[in-house]
Amino acid sequence: MNEPLLAGLLTDKYELTMLAAALRDGSADRRTAFELFARRLPAGRRYGVVAGTGRLLEALPQFRFDDEACQLLAQFLDPQTVRYLRDFRFGGDIDGYAEGELYFPGSPVLTVWGSFAECVVLETLALSIFNHDVAIASAAARMVSAGAERPLIDMGSRRTHERAAVAAARAAYLAGFAASSNLEAQRRYGIPTEGTAAHAFTMLHTRADASLEAAELAAFRAQVDALGVGTTLLVDTYDVATGVANAVAAAGPALGAVRIDSGELGVLARQVRRQLDELGATKTRIVVSGDLDEFSIAALRAEPVNSYGVGTSLVTGSGAPAAGMVYKLVEVDGMPVRKRSSHKESAGGHKEALRRSRSTGTITEEIVYPAGRPPAGVEPCRMLTVPLVRDGEAVAGTGGAALAAARDLVASGLHSLPWEGLKLANGEPAIPTTQIPA
Amino acid sequence: MNEPLLAGLLTDKYELTMLAAALRDGSADRRTAFELFARRLPAGRRYGVVAGTGRLLEALPQFRFDDEACQLLAQFLDPQTVRYLRDFRFGGDIDGYAEGELYFPGSPVLTVWGSFAECVVLETLALSIFNHDVAIASAAARMVSAGAERPLIDMGSRRTHERAAVAAARAAYLAGFAASSNLEAQRRYGIPTEGTAAHAFTMLHTRADASLEAAELAAFRAQVDALGVGTTLLVDTYDVATGVANAVAAAGPALGAVRIDSGELGVLARQVRRQLDELGATKTRIVVSGDLDEFSIAALRAEPVNSYGVGTSLVTGSGAPAAGMVYKLVEVDGMPVRKRSSHKESAGGHKEALRRSRSTGTITEEIVYPAGRPPAGVEPCRMLTVPLVRDGEAVAGTGGAALAAARDLVASGLHSLPWEGLKLANGEPAIPTTQIPA
Repeated sequence: MNEPLLAGLLTDKYELTMLAAALRDGSADRRTAFELFARRLPAGRRYGVVAGTGRLLEALPQFRFDDEACQLLAQFLDPQTVRYLRDFRFGGDIDGYAEGELYFPGSPVLTVWGSFAECVVLETLALSIFNHDVAIASAAARMVSAGAERPLIDMGSRRTHERAAVAAARAAYLAGFAASSNLEAQRRYGIPTEGTAAHAFTMLHTRADASLEAAELAAFRAQVDALGVGTTLLVDTYDVATGVANAVAAAGPALGAVRIDSGELGVLARQVRRQLDELGATKTRIVVSGDLDEFSIAALRAEPVNSYGVGTSLVTGSGAPAAGMVYKLVEVDGMPVRKRSSHKESAGGHKEALRRSRSTGTITEEIVYPAGRPPAGVEPCRMLTVPLVRDGEAVAGTGGAALAAARDLVASGLHSLPWEGLKLANGEPAIPTTQIPA
Repeated sequence: MNEPLLAGLLTDKYELTMLAAALRDGSADRRTAFELFARRLPAGRRYGVVAGTGRLLEALPQFRFDDEACQLLAQFLDPQTVRYLRDFRFGGDIDGYAEGELYFPGSPVLTVWGSFAECVVLETLALSIFNHDVAIASAAARMVSAGAERPLIDMGSRRTHERAAVAAARAAYLAGFAASSNLEAQRRYGIPTEGTAAHAFTMLHTRADASLEAAELAAFRAQVDALGVGTTLLVDTYDVATGVANAVAAAGPALGAVRIDSGELGVLARQVRRQLDELGATKTRIVVSGDLDEFSIAALRAEPVNSYGVGTSLVTGSGAPAAGMVYKLVEVDGMPVRKRSSHKESAGGHKEALRRSRSTGTITEEIVYPAGRPPAGVEPCRMLTVPLVRDGEAVAGTGGAALAAARDLVASGLHSLPWEGLKLANGEPAIPTTQIPA
């Protein structure tokens, strides 16, 4: 399960043709700052969650071009540019919000600075990672919040590209999901995995000479025999009441859990809870799944549900599958620059940010200011911009400890939101952002 | 840019725990057929496009578990199951629709048969590939159709996971896109790539002692100097009319193309066309981009636009980022099986399909029938089910020639649709499907 060795070609062609033109006219060496940010949140969202930072830091040393890549590049690039890329190693600096931090429209989530040459070629990879991971983490955090302490399991691998699934499991975990179904996410990121069973396993036990109910019982017995009574039995293949009776018959009252994957989950959860209790399986948990999103999770809050399996809506960002992050040149040789076209304005200049809060910890305002010039008199506040890369080397952590820290940061971020910010209904960003011009 | 060597862990844990239970009770050897299909099309869609077949065939030999993977598996699987997976090699058969074929609700897009053990473990990978690639190709085909012969360019890499981007470029190309911005798609699949320039390149040429217009002219001159007059200049960084004037000043009337990436594209395209013609650049093409989808592409049909760059809506399936494909056990030891739960019914049994058409070639009906028993008297028709894998070996082509064939098949499929089927507005599937029960 080796990761692909090199990531250089995961890039839009124009990054490299721009590089060629800039190398030729000498502007490639100008000192630039690029900012990765979102002009707005997905429609109606109150906050977003920064995710992908750790993946970008891990990808940076892989952003290289080997001989095969250079052969391809030589088809459309001049020899000088190909030589530059053959030797490429990002040597610039990156600042940004820590992974797991909340963000709002205009938050300078990442600032990459160095020569134009080394900054421009990272654009596609950085945007791919952040637009994907942020979309998943932002949706996941709303689900976690709607789940109100009940554990959520990512079951979405099959609903997204096979490699995106691994990154999605990571993003969901950092946003507070308890586990994933994805085994590569366990190997690659140490994320806990869980699994139940599919309807196929029950149907596999169909016999010409036996009823469907008998087949289900045989399937449950086989599963318990192999995986122990702590397993989760899927009870809705044929009839839920019969399924529950078969489940307890197979595992006894110590059965770990049952899963319901179809039907009106609230009604079924109540019926199943009653039936389990009557059968003495009072500790058997109820897992529900089947097209859940943050709204249906919230709607099940009063029902006897113990955990949620979430698939499609998680890995597709629950209606916002790309986070809308952009990567814009904001400074050249110390001069703030900006595009003038009407509806895509972004403030120029290299920026940093801090967040103000009440003494209770509830956040009240985000302030984005020219780098190095924080406004006076805004205590209590917290600096959001931290160093991530210096001279091309990661200075922020990566790996398991960093992922755990990001997960804690999301949890405390959600805790810091004003009440309105946790509402699932459409509305404005949870706090206003003040931009202090350069 | 090596692909990851092994794909076995890109799998939901429960596939392997079901395997463990089935190996233990002997049911792992039962002969099974699994069907990959969509219960419905995304809301309002008239047809879908089969995509991912080639990627699945290429992934099959990689679906293995190496020592590192087996160490992880041993944490939750018994030794017999780990041994089985260490030696795993899919040895079954796969039939299905050729890649590029249209599909409708209930179309048996793929049928995988063999032992339960070897079929069940492929579920996650097969669904990941098809749910992603089909979503992209199905959206892309509508854009191609809306584009009415004008070329479309995939510029969506930055809006999706970095590896999903490569598969998305492939899916878009097979659906009829002319090119992609993604260099790895060129290396991996031979897809033509194109590139223009970003606003950053213009802004890079900002000088404290020169106007923005002068900076733009310097940027255009640098680009033309490096890439030739056939290049595409991005004219909307500051003012479009000035941008066009600068573009022709830099490249002369033989300039290849200009790109407009913001504003009301129809109005701007007309103004820019007039201005280019007045400047003698009558052959200079106009490329438009900026949040395009099939509806805005269609709305630009009457405007002087030469090609479209499409990003977010393409790689996110234009509102339907997962295709809704499922992978269901339909037959065990020759017995059709099906789940009984109310709203997820699927017809049991191993199936094949054919499509009827008028003598004009316009398709009229899809017929899904028990495998090996085609209905009599339904000429003219075309068999849709073809062999893809026999005894674990691909018998359908993969690689460049197969991708080109899939691209042709989409084009002829779109040509075969009844008029209603090409409407972008919400509606029913373009043709009805008749299911002949087992």
